[in-house]
Amino acid sequence: MSLSPLHLKSQADRRLRKGHLWIYSNEVDVQATPLKAFALGQQVEVLAANGKSLGVATVNPNNLICARLVSRDARYPLDKSLLVHRIKQALSLRDNFFPAPYYRLIYGDSDLLPGLVVDRFGDYLVVQIATAGMEAVVDDIVAALVKVLQPAGVLLANEHSARELEQLPLYTRVAHGDVPGKVELMENHTRFLAPVFEGQKTGWFYDHRLNRARLQEFSAGKRVLDVFSYIGGWGLAAAQAGARDVVCVDASAPALECVMENARLNGFADRVRCQQGKAVAVMKAMIEAGEQFDIVVLDPPAFIKKRKDHKSGLAAYRHINELGMRLLGRDGLLVAGSCSMHLATAELEQCIQGAARHLDRQAQLVARGSQGPDHPVHAAIPETEYLKALFYRVYSA
Amino acid sequence: MSLSPLHLKSQADRRLRKGHLWIYSNEVDVQATPLKAFALGQQVEVLAANGKSLGVATVNPNNLICARLVSRDARYPLDKSLLVHRIKQALSLRDNFFPAPYYRLIYGDSDLLPGLVVDRFGDYLVVQIATAGMEAVVDDIVAALVKVLQPAGVLLANEHSARELEQLPLYTRVAHGDVPGKVELMENHTRFLAPVFEGQKTGWFYDHRLNRARLQEFSAGKRVLDVFSYIGGWGLAAAQAGARDVVCVDASAPALECVMENARLNGFADRVRCQQGKAVAVMKAMIEAGEQFDIVVLDPPAFIKKRKDHKSGLAAYRHINELGMRLLGRDGLLVAGSCSMHLATAELEQCIQGAARHLDRQAQLVARGSQGPDHPVHAAIPETEYLKALFYRVYSA
Repeated sequence: MSLSPLHLKSQADRRLRKGHLWIYSNEVDVQATPLKAFALGQQVEVLAANGKSLGVATVNPNNLICARLVSRDARYPLDKSLLVHRIKQALSLRDNFFPAPYYRLIYGDSDLLPGLVVDRFGDYLVVQIATAGMEAVVDDIVAALVKVLQPAGVLLANEHSARELEQLPLYTRVAHGDVPGKVELMENHTRFLAPVFEGQKTGWFYDHRLNRARLQEFSAGKRVLDVFSYIGGWGLAAAQAGARDVVCVDASAPALECVMENARLNGFADRVRCQQGKAVAVMKAMIEAGEQFDIVVLDPPAFIKKRKDHKSGLAAYRHINELGMRLLGRDGLLVAGSCSMHLATAELEQCIQGAARHLDRQAQLVARGSQGPDHPVHAAIPETEYLKALFYRVYSA
Repeated sequence: MSLSPLHLKSQADRRLRKGHLWIYSNEVDVQATPLKAFALGQQVEVLAANGKSLGVATVNPNNLICARLVSRDARYPLDKSLLVHRIKQALSLRDNFFPAPYYRLIYGDSDLLPGLVVDRFGDYLVVQIATAGMEAVVDDIVAALVKVLQPAGVLLANEHSARELEQLPLYTRVAHGDVPGKVELMENHTRFLAPVFEGQKTGWFYDHRLNRARLQEFSAGKRVLDVFSYIGGWGLAAAQAGARDVVCVDASAPALECVMENARLNGFADRVRCQQGKAVAVMKAMIEAGEQFDIVVLDPPAFIKKRKDHKSGLAAYRHINELGMRLLGRDGLLVAGSCSMHLATAELEQCIQGAARHLDRQAQLVARGSQGPDHPVHAAIPETEYLKALFYRVYSA
């Protein structure tokens, strides 16, 4: 099989040579190879200005990131065989770091599979495809996963907004075997049922696993508030580790039903309560009522999805963290999370310190958490890092 | 007791109001209050340009950082009573995060005691004093520690170079009770004897505790190389977690004797070997001999002690990490540590990625570690953060 060439401008190969996988539309020599000539998701051979081959990329003529490198050797395009190889390499990493099959199996660019995410829930796999290049080989993806892992079911959960940028249709479809409405997983000695058809993203957020494990180290006997709880990842981990009172807050009533179902599953529902409502309103009402906690966890959805949201998002992080701080007793722990790639860690730290000074409290950063090893950061692709969990002791000096 | 005033220039109170504790000599209104008029370590009341009191500081007229805030209320100077209060607040943090009394009890500025470091080894305390202000109250410090903790012994380990900047004498002295030549500690289920009179710093480095715990998660059955091992903190933690072969490399023969003594103490000396020599020379010889490891840990002393060492230090980090990478098999783990405050995390990451590209390997950052909760980062004092531990999977794609 011979691939059409994609010619880059002079110097445009530098980022790729340093290890990155993305090609921007202004880096293509469109005189030689007009982007419009390529089909959505088509594979091409990328050529530097000097004619040297850089490997194989998939093209989306409509996106600012118009091509993504899938192979550094033009003899090996993206097909079932390469997918099997990459999946095995990704599996080897997870086998090394995880005692049980509950993790993100494929994390896009970092596993050299741009646009592909696969979460593993034991025998079930939930797949998210974010690029036209991956969508074009969806059948190969499913076949490769079946070959390597023999799952009982594979779900394509392709409803997320990134697909709209790539002009891909939104759909959810069982592509192999059967997938139940909720799948079970174990995380930090806690059992969870995650709603894979109706939930957020793939149904679960494996990325905070180690940060939740850290929370467990100091949860025994504590009163814990979990704001933006979704189905209870943080709060129930704390309950499992012996927290004496856990309150989960979320805007979604179905998510909170899952919290209580999961609490019952672990046998500690008597120590878990839920409060449905918007985070800011609920926290203000709690402050008004004089409620106090030993630990407050704030793990909101991304407040900064795009660069233009930066200023308002920053204000929102500052606001919720100040509210959270006011719900701590004289000597408590604030866990400030962020999954915004566009929020620098230092900016989140400034939010906390600003809030602390405003409330005349001392803040000591006692731990920094990032995404777990199943969300590895590609050393040459800073965009693959997004997660923060900052643990602060907040006290009156 | 009425304190002499120290007048600041206009605007020079801003950093202090944001929570920082340091005053630089060019921020003092020396017309009003000449620095030379103060004694080494004298306590003063700090006044903003508008005359408002900012609290109490200790002065060292000879240092660029000429004063450090010890209290934000002029009624409470640095004395035994304030020391007891601060020690109790510091102890409360450690009690919350540590199951056993082996940790840094006082971490200078972060515990609002600039210039004071205390490491706890069960019943023994090792104290380092780095400022004239703390040296002036050394008897109060010892008395306060005895009051709060009733230790069997307190050692003043005041030999470090920071004291020369402050024009303080170098000495080691038992200030209370008795202190044995080696004290015992437990870390990550591993027993260690640390040489507090003859060793580095306080005799032990508690700061990497959680990073060594992380190493243990994936050490079982592995071949581990611990370069710059000192008395075996990393390597023996790996052995404790089931590593099948551990090699510790250090330039110091006495440190390596401690490694073997500690290995015997834990009953796994048969899986631990030592190689004395300079790190670079030893690693080159190992590469020459075709040795390979599953995990290579590089935790060197600070290569960048001062800003002027930055360029050469960076080259040294790059060099040792490339050598370390060459000692990994096809799919291994590199643990890159740095305790240089002047090395940015991103710079260390660039060293790794540069080495990986040079060797045509893929590098995935699977975990980021920082200093443990007994070395809290003061939210307003970035200088209190210095430690990095980057865990990379390095493989051939």
